[in-house]
Amino acid sequence: MRIRVINPNTTAAMTDKIGTAALHVARPGTEIIAVNPLSGPVSIESHFDEAVAAIGVCEEIRAGEQAGTDAYVIACFGDPGLYAARELTRAPVIGIAEAAFHMASLIATRFSIVTTLGRTGIIAERLLDEYGMAVRCRKVRAAEIPVLELEHNPRAAFERIVAESLRAKAEDNIGAIVLGCGGMANLTDAISAAVGLPVVEGVTAAVALAEAMVSLKLQTSKFGDLDTPPAKAFVGQFSHFSR
Amino acid sequence: MRIRVINPNTTAAMTDKIGTAALHVARPGTEIIAVNPLSGPVSIESHFDEAVAAIGVCEEIRAGEQAGTDAYVIACFGDPGLYAARELTRAPVIGIAEAAFHMASLIATRFSIVTTLGRTGIIAERLLDEYGMAVRCRKVRAAEIPVLELEHNPRAAFERIVAESLRAKAEDNIGAIVLGCGGMANLTDAISAAVGLPVVEGVTAAVALAEAMVSLKLQTSKFGDLDTPPAKAFVGQFSHFSR
Amino acid sequence: MRIRVINPNTTAAMTDKIGTAALHVARPGTEIIAVNPLSGPVSIESHFDEAVAAIGVCEEIRAGEQAGTDAYVIACFGDPGLYAARELTRAPVIGIAEAAFHMASLIATRFSIVTTLGRTGIIAERLLDEYGMAVRCRKVRAAEIPVLELEHNPRAAFERIVAESLRAKAEDNIGAIVLGCGGMANLTDAISAAVGLPVVEGVTAAVALAEAMVSLKLQTSKFGDLDTPPAKAFVGQFSHFSR
Amino acid sequence: MRIRVINPNTTAAMTDKIGTAALHVARPGTEIIAVNPLSGPVSIESHFDEAVAAIGVCEEIRAGEQAGTDAYVIACFGDPGLYAARELTRAPVIGIAEAAFHMASLIATRFSIVTTLGRTGIIAERLLDEYGMAVRCRKVRAAEIPVLELEHNPRAAFERIVAESLRAKAEDNIGAIVLGCGGMANLTDAISAAVGLPVVEGVTAAVALAEAMVSLKLQTSKFGDLDTPPAKAFVGQFSHFSR
Amino acid sequence: MRIRVINPNTTAAMTDKIGTAALHVARPGTEIIAVNPLSGPVSIESHFDEAVAAIGVCEEIRAGEQAGTDAYVIACFGDPGLYAARELTRAPVIGIAEAAFHMASLIATRFSIVTTLGRTGIIAERLLDEYGMAVRCRKVRAAEIPVLELEHNPRAAFERIVAESLRAKAEDNIGAIVLGCGGMANLTDAISAAVGLPVVEGVTAAVALAEAMVSLKLQTSKFGDLDTPPAKAFVGQFSHFSR
Amino acid sequence: MRIRVINPNTTAAMTDKIGTAALHVARPGTEIIAVNPLSGPVSIESHFDEAVAAIGVCEEIRAGEQAGTDAYVIACFGDPGLYAARELTRAPVIGIAEAAFHMASLIATRFSIVTTLGRTGIIAERLLDEYGMAVRCRKVRAAEIPVLELEHNPRAAFERIVAESLRAKAEDNIGAIVLGCGGMANLTDAISAAVGLPVVEGVTAAVALAEAMVSLKLQTSKFGDLDTPPAKAFVGQFSHFSR
Repeated sequence: MRIRVINPNTTAAMTDKIGTAALHVARPGTEIIAVNPLSGPVSIESHFDEAVAAIGVCEEIRAGEQAGTDAYVIACFGDPGLYAARELTRAPVIGIAEAAFHMASLIATRFSIVTTLGRTGIIAERLLDEYGMAVRCRKVRAAEIPVLELEHNPRAAFERIVAESLRAKAEDNIGAIVLGCGGMANLTDAISAAVGLPVVEGVTAAVALAEAMVSLKLQTSKFGDLDTPPAKAFVGQFSHFSR
Repeated sequence: MRIRVINPNTTAAMTDKIGTAALHVARPGTEIIAVNPLSGPVSIESHFDEAVAAIGVCEEIRAGEQAGTDAYVIACFGDPGLYAARELTRAPVIGIAEAAFHMASLIATRFSIVTTLGRTGIIAERLLDEYGMAVRCRKVRAAEIPVLELEHNPRAAFERIVAESLRAKAEDNIGAIVLGCGGMANLTDAISAAVGLPVVEGVTAAVALAEAMVSLKLQTSKFGDLDTPPAKAFVGQFSHFSR
Repeated sequence: MRIRVINPNTTAAMTDKIGTAALHVARPGTEIIAVNPLSGPVSIESHFDEAVAAIGVCEEIRAGEQAGTDAYVIACFGDPGLYAARELTRAPVIGIAEAAFHMASLIATRFSIVTTLGRTGIIAERLLDEYGMAVRCRKVRAAEIPVLELEHNPRAAFERIVAESLRAKAEDNIGAIVLGCGGMANLTDAISAAVGLPVVEGVTAAVALAEAMVSLKLQTSKFGDLDTPPAKAFVGQFSHFSR
Repeated sequence: MRIRVINPNTTAAMTDKIGTAALHVARPGTEIIAVNPLSGPVSIESHFDEAVAAIGVCEEIRAGEQAGTDAYVIACFGDPGLYAARELTRAPVIGIAEAAFHMASLIATRFSIVTTLGRTGIIAERLLDEYGMAVRCRKVRAAEIPVLELEHNPRAAFERIVAESLRAKAEDNIGAIVLGCGGMANLTDAISAAVGLPVVEGVTAAVALAEAMVSLKLQTSKFGDLDTPPAKAFVGQFSHFSR
Repeated sequence: MRIRVINPNTTAAMTDKIGTAALHVARPGTEIIAVNPLSGPVSIESHFDEAVAAIGVCEEIRAGEQAGTDAYVIACFGDPGLYAARELTRAPVIGIAEAAFHMASLIATRFSIVTTLGRTGIIAERLLDEYGMAVRCRKVRAAEIPVLELEHNPRAAFERIVAESLRAKAEDNIGAIVLGCGGMANLTDAISAAVGLPVVEGVTAAVALAEAMVSLKLQTSKFGDLDTPPAKAFVGQFSHFSR
Repeated sequence: MRIRVINPNTTAAMTDKIGTAALHVARPGTEIIAVNPLSGPVSIESHFDEAVAAIGVCEEIRAGEQAGTDAYVIACFGDPGLYAARELTRAPVIGIAEAAFHMASLIATRFSIVTTLGRTGIIAERLLDEYGMAVRCRKVRAAEIPVLELEHNPRAAFERIVAESLRAKAEDNIGAIVLGCGGMANLTDAISAAVGLPVVEGVTAAVALAEAMVSLKLQTSKFGDLDTPPAKAFVGQFSHFSR
């Protein structure tokens, strides 16, 4: 099967890292197509970045539909454009935040999230509420690392993530850590080893869920709000979306 | 004061109608600038339309910042791009769904929403949850009118909205109706008269709230998640967002 | 328009202060009638004080109806008698707690409340639940100031409020402070300046909301539970309520 | 032990009926003092009636404290003045709505409420939310009987209550009925027999709970928000509340 | 009346202690039958212990039905087997956690729980959610005492419970403590005296509630999910459950 | 990998059917060990049946630990013994209700459940609350089929399930159906074809999730409440649980 892993930001190095992490957990027969949009922000650290990135996600879904795709992963912890993306395809579309929450809830009764910046913690809080997972999460914690520091200064970033995770372990009465950024996808094992707790990371969780859904032949429902959008005109720079 | 009322779709006729409705309730000294993006969908009837429209909303906030603006209204019932927009300005930004919910909750203990299409009802449900208003809303009802029918076939649209509102009045044990589409902004009084219930409409509610906030000198907080987005590069068609 | 701002306690000095704060934000054409009941507690610091004050609120609504009133504000942070008051008039009736919560939610994703006494914090908690705003409020904090200290010892009171607000700013991960007592209505700007965060105060918020609602011709629904109470006999000291 | 059962309205016939029902379930050694305030509404059918009745409840608590009382019951389904009453005494104070909800939750996983008027249903809804019982209650149903019809036209009232209860049994997927008015206290057994479902009535439930709490020596906490109100001046018709 | 107080673990010393505590609050005419299953764990400190203990509870309900029983108490703070037990009898069945929560909510607006082990705190959290009491409980605290230490080392256990309760009093802004283990049933008065707060203990609360329900002739509903289980075959070691 | 699929009831024919359904979706390298306890009820249709079945589930986990197992599935829609089972192993343990809810939430915004008996609907409601999925589920519907009718009278059972699913499709405004019984595992495709909606079935969903978790090396956390139960004595028929 072919899974299109969409890094919603435009930093190719992060796309590569995400693709490598995805491949690491994929089944033998799974083809991982790691992509990022041609247009958009180099990292996602605000509601605005996320809104722009959602367009890139939709473009990549459209490209994926042309290329033939069995499932999609949106590899940013805010799950940008998730519902829009689902409207554009019958294939399953999985956000890495929802994937991580679902998986974490299966191995631990309570978890904490360790994310990059405090300001994006609110996005995680909102997703917890929306996905019904708020009661499972003890605390959203920020290591206060700009996203691209994960690329430019990985050692220091790793240490701050571990330090914050250890605080979570000591203080939060939890059974697992959820990593709150797609850019941490390569660190899962090392963090788990350093912290001594199960660590759930979204990119890998989403790839495994995508494989599971394809096995089950489960596809995005075309009944109700996820049906193909009504055909209509778009104008200006979005005129190519007209149908 | 100057309020920029942003119609997130690109249909100028709807922008005019929204602007007229806004002007109708504005104070003498209030200047209403009704605008719509140059790029985007001609109507908003899906998650995808909403995601694209959010970019147009952000563009219009940026234009408004150049022009000098005291408050913004996002005149689509899904409040597309609301948090992103708030990051881009210190001026208040008000979505018409939240405005309508807040106002309705001040005059009635329970209300129902009458919207256009059933498929967008889920967006209203999600906003009710997010804004803490779910317990106030008895039912989200759809008149099953495509948005542009409000422009092209206003008489028939009006009659279907009234019919659905009368069903709500008869069955839902409510004190008020909330209209679930910015394109209904000119119909408020007529619907209220026909239905015999208070009717809350979001464009007008948001304009009045915006005036109230400017009076109070309340501005979007720049502490926490609504602070100006971190400066960064954007590439491709969004490169003009780089800072 | 004429707005009757009801201080539910009987301390005229506080009524004056509230009236002045209301006038400070009111539009040019707005007449502020600041009143307090003839009977009731000199301050409101308990459920019992609030229950008694609710009668005074209702008396003032009745007086306001005789005098002609376009909107009412209940200027105590527990919103005492709110639903009863709404039954007695078609004019909008706004509690300062609900006004402050609604306004704060439009400028910040999360806020904390700084109130007078810890024992009344529970009233704020209950209103947060009832108005659907619990998720928005990080913490209800008390400066542990008896209400009348705001009159008798304003300097010390101010300093304690600022100190508690600064703790909220440092610890609560918030974008705004909500002041939890009508008696703080004159301190908004000074506290905001001292704390360096947006501060939302309920009396002023409610006046601006009331003006907005009158602009919109929104009136308390007479359908359902807010309809005029069934006519009936009252006996004893409340016999004047018979209809 | 001595339990003061306070009918918050001023209709002596209803007080008698409530007292009789209370006595019917009381233990041998329990003295039931059924009282009603000297001042207030003859029945409680609105938020306003409830606000006024709360004063009468507080007066009766004060009288009960003079007389020596082991526990209080507030015998109106809106639990008017409950928290205020608790501040005024160390004895337990139990509202009949909360008593009925607690008891019903012990014998059935889901119940429906059958109350008098639709307009007071909202009070039951609010209490269900506040007491954490919303998930237990399938539906709040109204027989649309004015409260005093229970006195003046008991046969017709009984039949309407039974009819509505039978609809609840047929449609609501429930295990029990909760009667939503203190004035139905004498009908419990007859309704249960006619409907063929367990019926929980609040006055009797509250008396039994009060006895239980006295057995346990549980008293209203004087730590936190239920502590005796701060001593202060009251003026006008409430000056006798000054301490 | 005859109340069967079931200690779900098999430690007879704890059964005796629970029986004594139950008798201490029972009315003169109440017969307390304190029992424990012949099979099961010697203490309950995990989900697994609880699952096994649920069978013992059901066996004791069956034995109680043979012997004639007016009400049952399940004397373990996880309320193991509660719904199953209710299916097996028309008599009321009360768990000590629910009993304690209900009673605590009647005397204090907020409480904290002091339990034995941190790992069983999650069971209390889940029950708080299920019973609608989560908002009432500020914190679930563990004294980190293995359950049988309450038998073997009562003095040390008492001191740790008091120490944790004093922390709750100092930090949690509460009006009462709920004791989170049936094995603390004999300590209620001593803890309350040492802590200076009302203390609610479940065994005694449940006995008093059971007496109340029997007075009211309230029985477990046989309509809906608590009806007698469908007759069917059981095999193996559970074949005696066949009907 | 080796997945032990535990049918918690003792009907071997159902175990076979479940095993076949599991095998149908399993990856080539996955070994499915379908088992049922030696002791317990022949079907699960009540809280009591579920409590007894939980013991059988634990026995099968213990047997699985001896045999070497990579993941477990509990193949009854009430997820009996789920937390206890998790304590007994490091391997993932997945209930079919949670698996179905998670998967359904990834392909549809709202779903309805079609289960066997109305009386067990309450179990589904409780799990929806506990797993945070209540907002996703529009309605729990019962086809009113005894569980073993699925074995003895499959054609009639199938028709009733389809009929109820069609009602859900027509009335519930949903995007998917969740099948609410492990005994329907073989019917998924046929029901989906007959109803024309995506159908999510728990056994298959859980097997796919289990494979995903094993791929990810995610194991049940041994920190906190899912840690191995404290070693202790069990007596009587459960003495073999002593450690």
